[in-house]
Amino acid sequence: MGETTNTRIVSGMRPTGPLHLGHYFGVLANWVALERDHDCFFFVADWHALTTEYADPSRIKGFVPELVKDWVAGGLDPEKCVLFQQSQVPEHVELNLFLSMITPVSWLERCPTYKDMVKELAAKDLSTYGFLGYPVLMAADILLYRPGAVPVGQDQLPHLELTREIARRFNYLYGEFFPEPAAVLTPSPKMPGLDGRKMSKSYGNSIALGEDPASMKKKVMSMLTCAKRARLKDPGDPKECNLYPYHELLTDKARLPEIVDGCVNATWGCGDCKKLLVENLTAFLSPIHAKRVELDKNPDMVRDILASGNARAKAVAERNMAELRDRLNFNF
Amino acid sequence: MGETTNTRIVSGMRPTGPLHLGHYFGVLANWVALERDHDCFFFVADWHALTTEYADPSRIKGFVPELVKDWVAGGLDPEKCVLFQQSQVPEHVELNLFLSMITPVSWLERCPTYKDMVKELAAKDLSTYGFLGYPVLMAADILLYRPGAVPVGQDQLPHLELTREIARRFNYLYGEFFPEPAAVLTPSPKMPGLDGRKMSKSYGNSIALGEDPASMKKKVMSMLTCAKRARLKDPGDPKECNLYPYHELLTDKARLPEIVDGCVNATWGCGDCKKLLVENLTAFLSPIHAKRVELDKNPDMVRDILASGNARAKAVAERNMAELRDRLNFNF
Ligand code: SF4
Ligand code: SF4
Repeated sequence: MGETTNTRIVSGMRPTGPLHLGHYFGVLANWVALERDHDCFFFVADWHALTTEYADPSRIKGFVPELVKDWVAGGLDPEKCVLFQQSQVPEHVELNLFLSMITPVSWLERCPTYKDMVKELAAKDLSTYGFLGYPVLMAADILLYRPGAVPVGQDQLPHLELTREIARRFNYLYGEFFPEPAAVLTPSPKMPGLDGRKMSKSYGNSIALGEDPASMKKKVMSMLTCAKRARLKDPGDPKECNLYPYHELLTDKARLPEIVDGCVNATWGCGDCKKLLVENLTAFLSPIHAKRVELDKNPDMVRDILASGNARAKAVAERNMAELRDRLNFNF
Repeated sequence: MGETTNTRIVSGMRPTGPLHLGHYFGVLANWVALERDHDCFFFVADWHALTTEYADPSRIKGFVPELVKDWVAGGLDPEKCVLFQQSQVPEHVELNLFLSMITPVSWLERCPTYKDMVKELAAKDLSTYGFLGYPVLMAADILLYRPGAVPVGQDQLPHLELTREIARRFNYLYGEFFPEPAAVLTPSPKMPGLDGRKMSKSYGNSIALGEDPASMKKKVMSMLTCAKRARLKDPGDPKECNLYPYHELLTDKARLPEIVDGCVNATWGCGDCKKLLVENLTAFLSPIHAKRVELDKNPDMVRDILASGNARAKAVAERNMAELRDRLNFNF
């Protein structure tokens, strides 16, 4: 990495369905913010999607271009960052094999996210070797590009720590090679679903990032608000309202006290509150939706974005793997 | 595979040092015999060597061409079979990833050879994720070429059974794709080391396949024979002699009764017995040694053998992986 500061970051998303507002505020908005002063590598983690979708992998293919559309419509600029697809850079699986050899099984078994995911996805049979090795593949995905940092939410810190441990072990065995990627702690604000539960497509309580404004309006207008406000003159409590968190993220901060005041003192109705949110959400979603329509009309655009991103990622991956093989004298 | 009989077999050896007579009679001789009426794919398992040699992988590189020399000197004909190097066909790691996703961890933990190897190699720290997944990589190595059979010794049957189970699970999930490779049970005759223990380079009790006859002679002449034969007139017992098993493999079967008789009745000395073995071993090793000298002089020959074998293996591997990706709709 020489004398220059390593501003490279690497992160990925699994192509398992359209992004919704939860994904946007939890991850994509952070990526867009990082794009300005980082050397960003963002990848479609299609091999990773296989770990959970192995029983029916056929749908992954369709989700790949959709994810890229969501990214670009949501604000990522393919000129400023490398957007690529994991499976198109086979060096990921090669590094995965090298890292497998040096990673103790016990590190994986104690990984808290492993236990969580097994629980969360109990319906699928995930006691597979590939699922156990999820964090190794993740370490390979990251370390392959030798980044200085990785953007993570608080809850993903254990995974990053495992990546750092694997990097340290590699460096210990073969000499300094991988920088230990630092955490760029990114905010993951609360963005509940329309019904107050976690936003998830499978719960039917989400607003897609590519949602058209008319459909969004219908969803917002039928949201349940604070149960105390049966009538307009009943005072409510924004803390018990499914809608209010949306204002926190989408409405001008300066206007929030006014909303709280109107709710608590029953001087402002839930209908007004919803109309304001629809307005702000429309302003937010319209340009994204427009960009998406444009991308939908030009499948070549997405294809070109990925082709160019894959080539750029592959060039870096090939160089780093060649250097790694040299280091291990495993170069033929 | 259509209507034709699938005569393809696949097998590999780890490049961890020169082959000795134990390897020859246990494995290589079987390969040579199979070459005639099978479509043989034999590979240098250099990625596999990493599972146990990860702490110092630098020596593997040197062992790769040496192994190929041993194979060719020992009788394999690179025109009749595909001799290739695992790491030069990256489809192995890609298939390894796909198979990882569908292989339950419990299948690996109960694998008897896993437990044995952990015990045997207790000195090295082998509780790694890669070592646990050894049988998955092995299944990938084999299934990648969709062979009809695999040559195995009795003790490797559990590994093959795991490969077959993985193939069945794949076929169950995604439709018939891999033939379940049958076992070609190969003889693994007893070929003890010079001191009667298991033949192993690390015990210093082996005769290399490429050993020059002079060095072999010295080793044989200093072997300990049956302890009962302190003097020429003391009767011995071939069953308690380190040397006799070599006669069983290298001396004309018709002469064996004569040796046993001479030993048991003390009419024939251990010196005579050794001289006869040296003669027969010389006849056996000389052409192998000569071929090896020729290969040593022409490093290009080995390079060309591997280059051509790698290309042939890669062509099959690419075709099969393309078909597999199509099957999973994981084709981009
Ligand atoms: S006024 Fe607004 S914040 Fe209060 S309950 Fe109604 S929708 Fe929620
Ligand atoms: S005569 Fe031959 S078989 Fe008998 S003890 Fe001596 S070396 Fe062994």
